[in-house]
Amino acid sequence: MRASGIRQFEIDRVEGGAASTVDDAIAIEEPLEIRLGYARPEGGRGERSISITMRTPGNDEELAAGFLFTEGIIREAADIVGIGPCGPPAMNGLINVVRVELADSVAVDLDRLERHFYTSSSCGVCGKSSLEAVAVQGRFDINEAGFHLDAGLLGNLPAALRSEQSAFEATGGLHASGLFDSSGRIVQVREDVGRHNALDKLIGYALMRSMLPLSDYGVIVSGRASFELLQKAMTAGLPMLAAVGAPSSLAIELAREFDMTLAGFVKPDLFNIYARADRVR
Amino acid sequence: MRASGIRQFEIDRVEGGAASTVDDAIAIEEPLEIRLGYARPEGGRGERSISITMRTPGNDEELAAGFLFTEGIIREAADIVGIGPCGPPAMNGLINVVRVELADSVAVDLDRLERHFYTSSSCGVCGKSSLEAVAVQGRFDINEAGFHLDAGLLGNLPAALRSEQSAFEATGGLHASGLFDSSGRIVQVREDVGRHNALDKLIGYALMRSMLPLSDYGVIVSGRASFELLQKAMTAGLPMLAAVGAPSSLAIELAREFDMTLAGFVKPDLFNIYARADRVR
Repeated sequence: MRASGIRQFEIDRVEGGAASTVDDAIAIEEPLEIRLGYARPEGGRGERSISITMRTPGNDEELAAGFLFTEGIIREAADIVGIGPCGPPAMNGLINVVRVELADSVAVDLDRLERHFYTSSSCGVCGKSSLEAVAVQGRFDINEAGFHLDAGLLGNLPAALRSEQSAFEATGGLHASGLFDSSGRIVQVREDVGRHNALDKLIGYALMRSMLPLSDYGVIVSGRASFELLQKAMTAGLPMLAAVGAPSSLAIELAREFDMTLAGFVKPDLFNIYARADRVR
Repeated sequence: MRASGIRQFEIDRVEGGAASTVDDAIAIEEPLEIRLGYARPEGGRGERSISITMRTPGNDEELAAGFLFTEGIIREAADIVGIGPCGPPAMNGLINVVRVELADSVAVDLDRLERHFYTSSSCGVCGKSSLEAVAVQGRFDINEAGFHLDAGLLGNLPAALRSEQSAFEATGGLHASGLFDSSGRIVQVREDVGRHNALDKLIGYALMRSMLPLSDYGVIVSGRASFELLQKAMTAGLPMLAAVGAPSSLAIELAREFDMTLAGFVKPDLFNIYARADRVR
């Protein structure tokens, strides 16, 4: 993790009724705009801004690539022919725009970008229709993934993730996602003020190294397991998501529908498994 | 908090290597669509879906009203002439659509709903431009708010909030926002899987009771303090936000720009103050 994700602030610390002024390390939150360059159906190339998200600077290209993939706008690494920061730095020295150049072969569905993701004609707005929308987007069959993990190794993942979280250690203000293999080793970690961004960065990292589907890995997340995190992990073909915190109802339903293993409240020697417990031994 | 925010799931609990099947209370996450009924400039009335958010069912009308207010689509309670669930229940029995009928006098800027909130012409995309966008939206001058709190009472807020969180107690999976007065008493609490939703519900509650601006109150949030939470609190005229967790850089900058008091890592006898410490005594 680059030190660029942290900034020092002078603050007041109050302890036992006494206040003192101290320097404190704070996790940076700044907007990032993602712009697409793409081939117009009618010929020529167009540009379009598709998203502004609040993120912690660092690994911006991975964040953009991961976001485009988990949102279903691109399908593989080859869909991106160029990616990089764009324009002059803002007054604080950061470049907060990433431009992604798509291959001519990518048909960008501009309407899809406007449409709401969670509605379907069969059920209107509900959890079921949200799952149907995920099914449409899914590319990888997770059911057959032979990945598994010893229960003892699963319990140790939160401590292992924490030890890799350099910026969290300093600020206490960052979520993390860590990719782990079947020996319980954490092979890559990304941090962000937004938990969805931390996972998009990790998936972007894997996408750009042609590691998808991630059928030989699991992912550990520092917070709770929401629908959105399960949807992103499922899109990347991850057979297991382990969370330090609680899952939501729709996260459990998604895991059960798509044969993902979902663990929560993970601690040494104590955790819950909400779906596909057979992958934990 | 209604019991509708919780659902029972049969899960596997693993403790010290032994697995058992147990019933577990899980926080519900389901999509909510917000639809607007409004007067068209050219005459007659129109309808438009403006948002789908993942939320915990319960207090949906407050969530919709608070969201419309903190997004700057409405300016006061009188802008809403009707609000309620819409359409038949989904298969799981929940109604996941809220329709809000706006007064004829409300000019709905449909373009604004499409536009990105965090860009401005002066600085492109950066924290500074995000703050400028908030300034445009702000109605209430917080600088003069005479609200203050004893340091000892501030330290007790997290425990007081926790004691009001009935659904969190059962599930471990819900964020909370609590409104408190200058005696440190928590007067209202809302819970949700999304921390921004919990705060929108609370602000919607206050809006619908004509309590805005909330210049005689502060808000305590169960997690971290992000830009988005500070922006919502500022829009409601809240002079103080206290967080159990860490603030982000842009949250601190927003608090300093708009004279809000921001406290973080709040524990008994130990906390940080990042802006306007004079309101804590």
